[in-house]
Formats: sequence, structure tokens, C-alpha cells
Amino acid sequence: MRKIRVGVAGYGTIGQRLADGVAMQEDMELVGVADLAPTLAVRALYEKGMPYDLYLVDGANSDALDQLGIPVSGTFQDLLGKVDIMLDSSPGGVGAKNKVLYEKAGVKAIFQGGEKNSVADVFFHGYANYEKGIGQQYLKLTSCNTTGLIRSVDCLDRAYGVEKAAITIIRRVADPGDYHRGLTNALQMEKAPTHQAVDLMTIMPHISATGILVHTPVTHGHIITVVVSGKRKITREMALEAFEKHPRIRVVSIDDGFAGNSSFFKYGRDLGRPRGDLYEIGLWADSIVESGDDLMYAIHIPQESVTIPETIDGIRAACSMQLTREEGTAMTNKYLHIGQFKGLFQPKAPVSARKVG
Amino acid sequence: MRKIRVGVAGYGTIGQRLADGVAMQEDMELVGVADLAPTLAVRALYEKGMPYDLYLVDGANSDALDQLGIPVSGTFQDLLGKVDIMLDSSPGGVGAKNKVLYEKAGVKAIFQGGEKNSVADVFFHGYANYEKGIGQQYLKLTSCNTTGLIRSVDCLDRAYGVEKAAITIIRRVADPGDYHRGLTNALQMEKAPTHQAVDLMTIMPHISATGILVHTPVTHGHIITVVVSGKRKITREMALEAFEKHPRIRVVSIDDGFAGNSSFFKYGRDLGRPRGDLYEIGLWADSIVESGDDLMYAIHIPQESVTIPETIDGIRAACSMQLTREEGTAMTNKYLHIGQFKGLFQPKAPVSARKVG
Amino acid sequence: MRKIRVGVAGYGTIGQRLADGVAMQEDMELVGVADLAPTLAVRALYEKGMPYDLYLVDGANSDALDQLGIPVSGTFQDLLGKVDIMLDSSPGGVGAKNKVLYEKAGVKAIFQGGEKNSVADVFFHGYANYEKGIGQQYLKLTSCNTTGLIRSVDCLDRAYGVEKAAITIIRRVADPGDYHRGLTNALQMEKAPTHQAVDLMTIMPHISATGILVHTPVTHGHIITVVVSGKRKITREMALEAFEKHPRIRVVSIDDGFAGNSSFFKYGRDLGRPRGDLYEIGLWADSIVESGDDLMYAIHIPQESVTIPETIDGIRAACSMQLTREEGTAMTNKYLHIGQFKGLFQPKAPVSARKVG
Amino acid sequence: MRKIRVGVAGYGTIGQRLADGVAMQEDMELVGVADLAPTLAVRALYEKGMPYDLYLVDGANSDALDQLGIPVSGTFQDLLGKVDIMLDSSPGGVGAKNKVLYEKAGVKAIFQGGEKNSVADVFFHGYANYEKGIGQQYLKLTSCNTTGLIRSVDCLDRAYGVEKAAITIIRRVADPGDYHRGLTNALQMEKAPTHQAVDLMTIMPHISATGILVHTPVTHGHIITVVVSGKRKITREMALEAFEKHPRIRVVSIDDGFAGNSSFFKYGRDLGRPRGDLYEIGLWADSIVESGDDLMYAIHIPQESVTIPETIDGIRAACSMQLTREEGTAMTNKYLHIGQFKGLFQPKAPVSARKVG
Repeated sequence: MRKIRVGVAGYGTIGQRLADGVAMQEDMELVGVADLAPTLAVRALYEKGMPYDLYLVDGANSDALDQLGIPVSGTFQDLLGKVDIMLDSSPGGVGAKNKVLYEKAGVKAIFQGGEKNSVADVFFHGYANYEKGIGQQYLKLTSCNTTGLIRSVDCLDRAYGVEKAAITIIRRVADPGDYHRGLTNALQMEKAPTHQAVDLMTIMPHISATGILVHTPVTHGHIITVVVSGKRKITREMALEAFEKHPRIRVVSIDDGFAGNSSFFKYGRDLGRPRGDLYEIGLWADSIVESGDDLMYAIHIPQESVTIPETIDGIRAACSMQLTREEGTAMTNKYLHIGQFKGLFQPKAPVSARKVG
Repeated sequence: MRKIRVGVAGYGTIGQRLADGVAMQEDMELVGVADLAPTLAVRALYEKGMPYDLYLVDGANSDALDQLGIPVSGTFQDLLGKVDIMLDSSPGGVGAKNKVLYEKAGVKAIFQGGEKNSVADVFFHGYANYEKGIGQQYLKLTSCNTTGLIRSVDCLDRAYGVEKAAITIIRRVADPGDYHRGLTNALQMEKAPTHQAVDLMTIMPHISATGILVHTPVTHGHIITVVVSGKRKITREMALEAFEKHPRIRVVSIDDGFAGNSSFFKYGRDLGRPRGDLYEIGLWADSIVESGDDLMYAIHIPQESVTIPETIDGIRAACSMQLTREEGTAMTNKYLHIGQFKGLFQPKAPVSARKVG
Repeated sequence: MRKIRVGVAGYGTIGQRLADGVAMQEDMELVGVADLAPTLAVRALYEKGMPYDLYLVDGANSDALDQLGIPVSGTFQDLLGKVDIMLDSSPGGVGAKNKVLYEKAGVKAIFQGGEKNSVADVFFHGYANYEKGIGQQYLKLTSCNTTGLIRSVDCLDRAYGVEKAAITIIRRVADPGDYHRGLTNALQMEKAPTHQAVDLMTIMPHISATGILVHTPVTHGHIITVVVSGKRKITREMALEAFEKHPRIRVVSIDDGFAGNSSFFKYGRDLGRPRGDLYEIGLWADSIVESGDDLMYAIHIPQESVTIPETIDGIRAACSMQLTREEGTAMTNKYLHIGQFKGLFQPKAPVSARKVG
Repeated sequence: MRKIRVGVAGYGTIGQRLADGVAMQEDMELVGVADLAPTLAVRALYEKGMPYDLYLVDGANSDALDQLGIPVSGTFQDLLGKVDIMLDSSPGGVGAKNKVLYEKAGVKAIFQGGEKNSVADVFFHGYANYEKGIGQQYLKLTSCNTTGLIRSVDCLDRAYGVEKAAITIIRRVADPGDYHRGLTNALQMEKAPTHQAVDLMTIMPHISATGILVHTPVTHGHIITVVVSGKRKITREMALEAFEKHPRIRVVSIDDGFAGNSSFFKYGRDLGRPRGDLYEIGLWADSIVESGDDLMYAIHIPQESVTIPETIDGIRAACSMQLTREEGTAMTNKYLHIGQFKGLFQPKAPVSARKVG
């Protein structure tokens, strides 16, 4: 069977990781990546020996690339002529402009969370609504926080039924290496309700959700607390059982050394993952508590890499590579080596025995 | 009527502010403060001309004070001999040791949040259980987060009835000027449920509460999000109406410039308050949202100063100065100039008109 | 003698402090302050009861002020008609535009560091070149870092002669309450040489200076290290002796509790200074070291308040109130209560005895 | 020729990287690593499939490892019986205790910067005094800042002669993933002179050095500014020429995107280096400035990985694998792929043309 040919527009924080993730899929071919200047990411691509072909978008600084000797394989249009589908990780708003080119070239596309929902036919999440994406021309992926949040809520919802969710997003304000945005000694509020709660309701319309977002001066991942009301009472043992089965949720505990968001970053680096990235969200077993009929827990969102698996799920759906959620996500997980290591930190025994107030 | 004579043990972050607050009460006399070394706070006291008399606790470095020429008015026992009640803001655990001396001297005492509940007869909050403190020998005040949290929950509870609360504490990890504790580019988890939820249930046993606490690398105040279930549905208009009437809650909005925790710190400085301190908690009108029958909102806790009013309420209760919650807190508010400016930022009109998703 | 009438343009971080500083000068009258919107600073002015009259610049949002009931005393032109001199602390670039109005109104003006040097007749520093400012129409003050840096270099230069200075500025990136600028987990470089070294040479042309500036994610003051080559060798004892005599330099030591930049901020708050501000720079006695014939030391710059005294010196010079540097700065110091407390922390004895490698 | 057998004591931040670095040397064999508990690093080793054998030091928590199924290859003594040389990256002070075991086992050892100099025969730096380490039993490596600093000073010294150096260390206070140390919104002073200047003089006794260290709340690398006085004037062109030839110095510029310390961290991740680590120090071409006869420049120190090459140099010296500095460091560089990519960012042309005040 012919491999699906994939291009990436925008070789930034997300684009680099999409390229790496696609390159790991044995049933896909990464045709190339497109950008417009010798950014640090493009310089690193060159220093690595150009493992991916580089194409230039309109308005690119080709002189600057020439002077550095960085080889260019063609224009953005050249790239569009060689692919079945584009992953668009351009800066917010540029994707909508690129869509005109995708339509002209007759290629499918998946847009990142920064674009408006109207840019696409389906607002997509690999686990929550895979089937809606099948055969579609244009998908828009959920943003990093929403992607991780929905993993956990969808997990409980499929197992036990969820009616209501109230979330608090403790948001990292910048990525490592960012200087153009930042926050110094401040927690910054956004007006409620936060868009991630609204987005959750768009993807899972049977759930009532709201939430508050607070920006914090850190770079290694968001933390979200979730208060969930189930159709019936969900105990923490029930929740743990469901979470531990989910391939893209890594259940950890503070006692094991996962003291906060930076622990996941350290662990990913120590694992030798490229860039130290983790594809899984973290879920602290010792954060799960009950209050009356409600359940509360905290998750960690690795903002740079969390959307990669669901975006690749999107390729599988849009290109009708697999026709069910189970098959599509399983194939993505297989090639990204997700969920292949389970069990070391399963805190079942100690957690069941622990008193939780 | 004779003024109640008050001493302060431990002239640190809280002790300095307790001394200032007591000195403002026209029906109290600040007899003196006790400490053990020429800390920055004691040096500043000296540079200011010793507005408060300094007493030395056992084991104090009196040589160091002598060399600097800082005058000392006597020993801790001397101080105990001159007061009716001590405010103990010693480091955690020292208060319990001091209690032996208070018992021997026959003076009342109010301990800060760092001590165990068992040190006192009553775990006290000026608004939530004033009457329980009346005439008692030993009170322990709620910690900073719990003090502010209870103000808001008690406010809704008295107005409409509250059954359940789930809180997320986004905790500032250090005070300005701290070097001995800190956190750098990390969000640090604590095991759930957090003690503030448990403490809330101790003070308000008819409410079921739980919560998760995350430490963040900032110094200018905690932010807490609260999900509340009322006995009947509490709308955001109902909530706003109640919050705006509370003297120790300052309702603000992001549009007015209160962008986050540091805005309160800036505003307190610009107001010319001593040390830039605010006694009120902040409550963002544009954080209040409904989800089904639940209500969610966010508050700001100025950790250095928030407990001062409730501690002074405690003096009034323990010394039977006022016999009702209304009279006691009103007298404290009057002398601390709390709630005398109301109305400028009341965002009633704009907020009612704003769509909240 | 008639008091000099002073206005302030721009009631922001610097403008508020200029107004407070001028209001403390018994030979000056603060006529009013000008701004354009109900910022937090203006709201605080109102909540304090309008101690200063508020005037509105062109384009101000007078409706917003009206709705809040904040009284306005007139237009910017009205203000110019009542003053002898304006202190312009508008955002960078606005001062140059305002100058046209100052010229038309025939009033003198002092611009802040954000403007270009060409806006003024003299680039001014109260201690380094007071006499050059006498009788001038337009002065521009040195920026916060340069103001503090020159205090220390001029101090050594007048005592012993300085030939060369190489500085490293460890710059705070934002003020408390800022959200529009910030830096998260990063040290950011600026191209060398940094403008403060160039500015030093402009004010003190007999000195050769260079330097490197690094932005750091903190808010409570810059730290500058200075490597100085004297005309003859300056020992650390010689340096200490000169520094301790300077009214606007506060010599401290780490052992006394001044562990870093935030200690000064804490100390200023504990002193009860308005907004917790200090006018003095800090100088760590235990940072002074020799290397061959060179001397190295570190200073603390309280960025929000450090330029206030030198700006008031500028009023005295421009308005010919005092005709010598000694008299002008002494009068400013007197009314700002600078240097009235000296001696507590003079670390002469312990420092001389300490071995310094 | 038989490979040199190497063990690593302490599988922490440095130990992991030493193990990785040794494993890349084709003329060395990594026998195993020793630790005492299932830390995150040991868990990651297990999840990776135990690429290195794990040995347990005395007092290790072998039960905890057993329960997790993490295989153990023997005791610390077992490890010592199989190696020629140990790299000791135990916590500070533990290395001195381990030395007794090394002596008993008759193995050589290299201690990290946290130990006292007296623990070793030679205080070692691969480029500055390789020959002194040849055939020695015990070496102690310079700390991370000193290692990087000496690279740059030794580079200038060998090319042109250096007489004096005054350094300002803008120190990162914690590593990514640290919670036990940290600093929040503060710059913290250390008493001068800082030990790195003293250490430089120990290694390079013909140079007079001093310096001041300031801790800053960041995690991605130190920045050091250096003021150097040459035997003759060193111009910035001369300095650039020497720096660009050094394999372990990466000359970059702000315009190329290296805006600060975090840029190197991002670049290392984008390069796909294990853990995103860089072995080279960074040196900003646009930080190099002259002041009279002095030269000033700024370097970046990647604290987690910078000492790895010089430690491996130490193995080569101590085990007499290569008998000259040139051969020893060249072999280390070859196997670590250091200096194999040169030229992309050489900013010669633009920099020569740039005016530098």
C-alpha cells in the first residue's frame, strides 16, 4: 500500500515535532517542511545534515539561507504538489491564508489550535471524535491544554459517564527558549470562562463545562485541576483504574519523584526522548480526591508535544487510513512507542491503602 | 474603659503587621514586640526610631543588639507581665513552646496558622465563628489562604447556603525578601486534599470540601479558584451582590487594570498603605462563572497581611470586647480603615451586560 | 521667597514618585499631575482623596474618569500655565512631543531617561555635573541604572581619580505589577557595549567605560558589578571610606541580612517608606575586592525610585535655586530624609578583619 | 589495545551524562553505574531497558528497587573490582568518603567540583593543565563555571598572553527538575571573591583574578562576563579569531537567534542531542568589546554537561592513554562529536563591520 505523503508548514516548536512524529510512522512519508528564514530550528536542521527537505514559503528570506549554505528543495507550491496532506503549524492566522493554497492544490490539511474553528470541517480529537474526521478534507486540532484535558475527561466519560466539569488551568506562559513572551513574578488572570472549557463542550456536547485560566511564570508544562461530576459517583479507585488503562495517560505519584511539572520534563530528557519530549499527559494518583459525589484530580500537559499523537490520528482519519478510533489511535501509538512501557509506576497498591482525608 | 494591652511574639513578616494593626486600634495598647536578633525587621524598627518597645526572648543575641545600639526594654517575661493577651507569630512550633510561658503568666494568646490546632481552645475566624472565640483563653487563627477562602465561602453561605466546595490553590511560594525558600521554573504539587479544604470543614462543618494545591514561583499573593455548590443555585449576579457588600472583599475586574496577583500589590503600594499591604482579599468579577448549578470564582490572597484583621477580631472575642460577630468585626474594620472606600470599581453594570459564554 | 511651582506629566511608576518627592520639598509646590486614563495609579490617587490635582493630556479618556467620579482640574495646557517647570515622565518618545508645548508655554522641563539626549540642553546628574544644569531650560536625566552607577563612580572619582570602568548590569526586567513585559526562565543578552557605559562617558568624559547588560527575570532592583581602574590604586578600605560618606549610597553587608536585591525592597517596606521605596543605592561591603591595581564592587539599583533625588536636584539647578552641587544636593537630601540615618550598618571593623582571598 | 574500564558513582544530573559520554568513547568501556534508590534517573534507566548495569552503594534501598523489578548487577565493591577508574559524581562530600574504597580497591578516580581540592593529587582541566594529570591516581575536576571560564581564558592566554581577569558570574540557581533549591524573584549575592576566580588562579597561577557571583532564578545555564587584561592589547578581532578556532567554544550572535541562555538549551534540543545537552560553551560575538587596553566578553555555561569533555580528558590523562593535551582533547572531541560542525554561525564579516561604541 502506498504511503501517505505528508508535508509540514511552519518548522517551529510544533512543526519540528510533527515532522519527527510523522517520520516515525512507517505508513507515512514526510515529504518536507516549509519555513521562511534561518531560525534556530532551521539552523539545527542544517547542522543535523538536513534529515528533512526544506521548502520556502512566499516571502521567505532565501538570500539569508543561501549565504549560510542551507539547501532549499523548492517552493511551498512545489511541496503542495508532492503531498496528500499538510500539517499546518504556522503562526495563528496564517493557516487560514494557507488554506486557499491547499484548496487550489487539492490537498487535505490539519490546522493547529491557533486557527479559528471555522477554518476546518471538523474540530478534531483522536480519542473523543475520531470517526467525525474520517474522509474529511480539513480538520482543526484541539489546542494543547484541550487535547490533554479531553484525554482524561473522555477516558472517564467512556468508562462511567461524565455530566459536568469545572477546570482550573495553571498555564505555563512561555516555552523554553522564548523571549518574546514572558511573565515575571506574576500570576495573570484571563476572563472566565476559559476557551478550553468551551472547546471541551464543542467536542463533547453532552458535558457542561466551565473554567478559569491563570498564567504562571514557568515553561515546563501546564497543570490542570479538574472537578468532575459523573452520571453516577466515580470513586478514586474507579478513576485510577480507567486512567491507568489509557495509553496516552501516564499515572505517577509525588512519592515516586514526580514532584511537579518539571519532573516530567526531566524524566523525558533522562529517557533519551528526542528533545526530552513526552507524548503522554501526566496524572498524579495522589491528586485524586472525592468530595461528595464529585471527583477532583490534576494532570500535567507537556505543551510542546502533547498534540503530536492526536494530529497524527487526524492524518489517519482524514486519509481514511483506519476507520475506527481504536485502530487509528493504536497505529499512532505503535509507531510513536506510546504505552509500550506500563506498570513500573502503577501506584495501585500504595494508593488504595493511603488515606485521603 | 481601660485599653486592652497587647504584645507580639516574633517580629517577622506577620508580627510586624500585627504590631502595626494593633497600634491602629484606639481601644488597644501595643505594649511591645519580642524577638531574638538584629534581623532586617528589627534594624528597620531601630532606624524608624523604635516606635514599638523591643523585648528579648530567651536565647536572644543581646550582644549583637547592644553593639548596634538598639535599645531593649526587657525580657519576654517582662513583656508577659504587662499584657492581657499575646499575639504569637513565632516560627511554626515555637508557639506551642511559648504557650507554657503564657499559661504561667496567665495571659491569653492567639497563635498563627503554623501551629497545630491542638495548641488552642478554638480554631478561629472572625467572620465564620467569632462567637466561639468569646472569652476563650487560647485561639488559633486560620492560615492566610484559609482566612481569605473562608471570607468568600462564609459570605455566600450566610447569604444563600453552601453545601460543597472544591478549591484549587495557586500558591505563592515565598514572600518578597525570602531567600531560604523558593522555586525556579517549576510548579510543585502537594498531596491532595490540601489542608485548607480540611480546615474549612473544621470551621464550617456543614460544608463538604476538598482541594488541590500547587506552588508557583511568585511572591505577590495566592490565587484560589473555588467551585461552590449552593443549597439552591447561586447565580453570578447573586454572588456579586453578596461579595460587594462584604467589607473585607474587594471586587475588581481585569478591565479595570487588576490583571493578576501583582496588580493588588502595586495598587496597595500606590495607595500609600504601610508596606503597600492590603487587608482585603481581591475577587475578580470577571472570573465568576456558572456551570449547571455550580458557581466558580477566583480570589486573591495577600499572604502577608490578610490574617491581620481576623487576628484583631480574635483579640476582641477572646477579651470579650465585643460580644457579637457584627460588632467585633465592625470595630476592627473601623480602626483598620477597611471598607471605607466602596463603589469606585463596583463593576455591576458592565458585568451584568457582559456575555459569559 | 516664592516656591518653585512644579508639574508632573505622566502619573506612572516614575511620575507618582516624582510627585511624592516634590511634595516633600518645602521650597517647592506640586501644582498637579497629568495623565490620560483611569489607570490603577489614578484610581489609587482618587481612593486616597486626590492629594494631587489631576489634569488631562490631549486625547485623554475623560468619559471614563467622569463615570468613576474622579475629579479633573483642567487640561495639560491649564497645568502648563501654572508651573515654572515640568517633570516629564511620559512614555519614551512622548516627552519629545510634549517639548513643543513646553516651549510654547515657556516652561522649563526635565525629561526622563527614555527620551533621546537631543531633547535637552544638558544630560544631567545631580552629583556628577550639577553645575552644567544651572539655569538651563531643558535637562534630561540619566536612566535609573546610569544614575546609580554614576553615584558610585563619581564618588570614587572625586576622592581618588578614576580612569576606566567595565560594568556588568544584571538588569531586572519588569516592575512589580507589570504584565506587558517579562521574561520567564531566561537570561537575555543585549548587544555590547550597553548604553549605560556610553552614558557614563557622556557625563564623565575623562573616563573610559564599557559594559555588558543581561536581563534577568526579577522585579526588585538591578545589580551592577563595576571593575574600576583608578589613577592610583584604590584599595577596598579607601573605597569603603568614600562610599560610606556618600548620602545616597547605603553600605550594607550580606551578614547583616542584605542577601540580595529583594532585601532592599523588604527593608524599604519595613521602614515604612511610601511604597517601600528607597532613594539610596545599596553597596555591599563584602562585594568589594581588589585584583592587582583594579577594584571591583557590586551595587543595587532600586529602579522605581533611584532617579527621584537627582531629578529634584535638576529642578534646583535649572531654576537656579542653589548654585553649587553641594548646596543643591544637600537641600534635596534634607527634604527627602536621605542620609539622616548613618552608622548602624557601617561594617568597617568586621570587614577590615575579613580575609578576601 | 585493551579498552579502559570506567565506572560511575552517583547516577544523578552529572553521573548520567558522564555515563553517556564514556559510552561514546570507542577506546573505553562503561562497566556500570552506582546509585542507591529508584530516583527518576534510575527509573528512566529501567524504562530504557538498562543500557548500563546498575550497582548499589552501601545503604542503598534495594527493597524499593526489587519491588519495581529493576535489576541490580552487584555492589559498589563489585563494580570497583571490574574497573580501572571511577568517575565520582556523588553529592558533595561523599566523594571523599568513597576515596577510601577506591584506595582499597586500587582504582583511580576523578572527583567532581563539589569535593575539596585536597581529595585529589591534581586539580585538573583538560585544556589548561592536561599534562599535570598524566599518570596520576586522583584528579579533581573544576566545577562547571570554572571549566567553561578557563576554556575561554586559556584560549586567549595561549594565543596572546593574559595577565588579569575580573569575572561576574550570573549563576543559574537550579537545574530543570530541581525542587529542593530555588530562588523566586530575587538576585542573591555571594561574598566576594567568588571561588571560581580563586580556582582559576590555582589552575593558572600566572593570572591575577577576582570576581563576584550573583544567583539568578533561571535553570538553563550560567552567563559569565569576563574583563581580561592581556600582556599586550587583545583586540576583539584577535579574540574572535582565537575563540573560533577552539573546538569547545561555540561562537554565536544575538542576531542569529541566540538571544540568551535559553537559546542554547533550545538549540541543543532541536539538534537532537541526548537530553538536548551541549558540550560547548557559547560565546557571543556581539558581546566582545574593548575598553582601553582591556577586553570584555560574555560566555554561556551549560551547567549540566559542560564538564563531561574535560572529565573524559581526565580519564585519558590519568590512564596515560594520550600523553599530550592536543592528543588527549582531540580524542575526546572526536568521540563526542565536538567541533565537527564549524562555520555556519561564524559572524566574522558582519562583526568586523559593526561599530562597537
